[in-house]
Amino acid sequence: MKLLLASRNEGKLVEFRLLLPGFELLPWPKTAPGIPEDGAFFRDNAAQKADFARAWWSRHGEAELDGVLADDSGLCVEALHGGPGVLSARFARELEQDEKNRALLAMMPLDARRNASFVCVLAFAPFPAGELVYAEGTVEGKLAPHPAGTRGFGYDPIFIPKGYRRTFAQLGNRVKSRLSHRARACEALKLMV
Amino acid sequence: MKLLLASRNEGKLVEFRLLLPGFELLPWPKTAPGIPEDGAFFRDNAAQKADFARAWWSRHGEAELDGVLADDSGLCVEALHGGPGVLSARFARELEQDEKNRALLAMMPLDARRNASFVCVLAFAPFPAGELVYAEGTVEGKLAPHPAGTRGFGYDPIFIPKGYRRTFAQLGNRVKSRLSHRARACEALKLMV
Repeated sequence: MKLLLASRNEGKLVEFRLLLPGFELLPWPKTAPGIPEDGAFFRDNAAQKADFARAWWSRHGEAELDGVLADDSGLCVEALHGGPGVLSARFARELEQDEKNRALLAMMPLDARRNASFVCVLAFAPFPAGELVYAEGTVEGKLAPHPAGTRGFGYDPIFIPKGYRRTFAQLGNRVKSRLSHRARACEALKLMV
Repeated sequence: MKLLLASRNEGKLVEFRLLLPGFELLPWPKTAPGIPEDGAFFRDNAAQKADFARAWWSRHGEAELDGVLADDSGLCVEALHGGPGVLSARFARELEQDEKNRALLAMMPLDARRNASFVCVLAFAPFPAGELVYAEGTVEGKLAPHPAGTRGFGYDPIFIPKGYRRTFAQLGNRVKSRLSHRARACEALKLMV
């Protein structure tokens, strides 16, 4: 199955290639326009990205596709009332990711519970037409005391999954591809498409 | 104590007057500009509103003040990964509130847990200068099966606080002023200013 990934995020592309080994994944072309995401829910954003990418590919795409895959994901921190959540990518956009990680940790009240979860919502858009299919995955964990590790991407250096003592960025893809939010969403998606 | 409320929301003004009986509350003038809120966290937004309103009042205000009070609040739904949360006001802005309430209920998966919480973060800005003081309040509950009640405002018709069987919009201010997120945030604030 040939899928277009509606994302310019290299980290996501690497993970999806590991998580969906039976699929051929095309990255979003560098020359294509940016993909909008301004929804209030992960699901809205995933749908918005899948719809946008499918419509664009219909007019400009250079290969046959079976579908378009879009991912909206984020880190939800209990003591920050679920934030940055759906705004994970938009929060402090002017900062590099490592500064963003430190900024997020700095926002935590000293005595706060550090519970957090990573959420991933996938939207699959059959090509050239057809209703979207959604799949969700969540992994519970907590915020690390400080950023650690160099693998993965995004907030991985500050997230310690439940049952582990190191961050996703320390644990790397062998662990992450088993229990991450994205891994779980992919498992759910594979049952449906 | 004379406070400027950095909000055009009539419902909030009514509630704050009940919750802060020792305070004189001025509403945000109809002729004043809209107050921005584009942060990723309730606290960011409350700070942004308080700062904006204090700066504007310094230049254009027509009365002496002791401080500016800003409120950022929202409904966090567990099954929607904490959404609309900080985006509660921005979600589906084109809809009237009663349509918004129905749209939110329609987004709930059929078998989903209906746990939700209302969150309020207050920022108090001393006038004419001084560091902001923050106070938070939360009330746990669940989403109603359908909107009910005419009192209160915002998402009140679809929120049933824990321990009750009716919505905030049915229960009205006698209950709401005892246990709402805003009531709890006001209690915390009164200890500090």
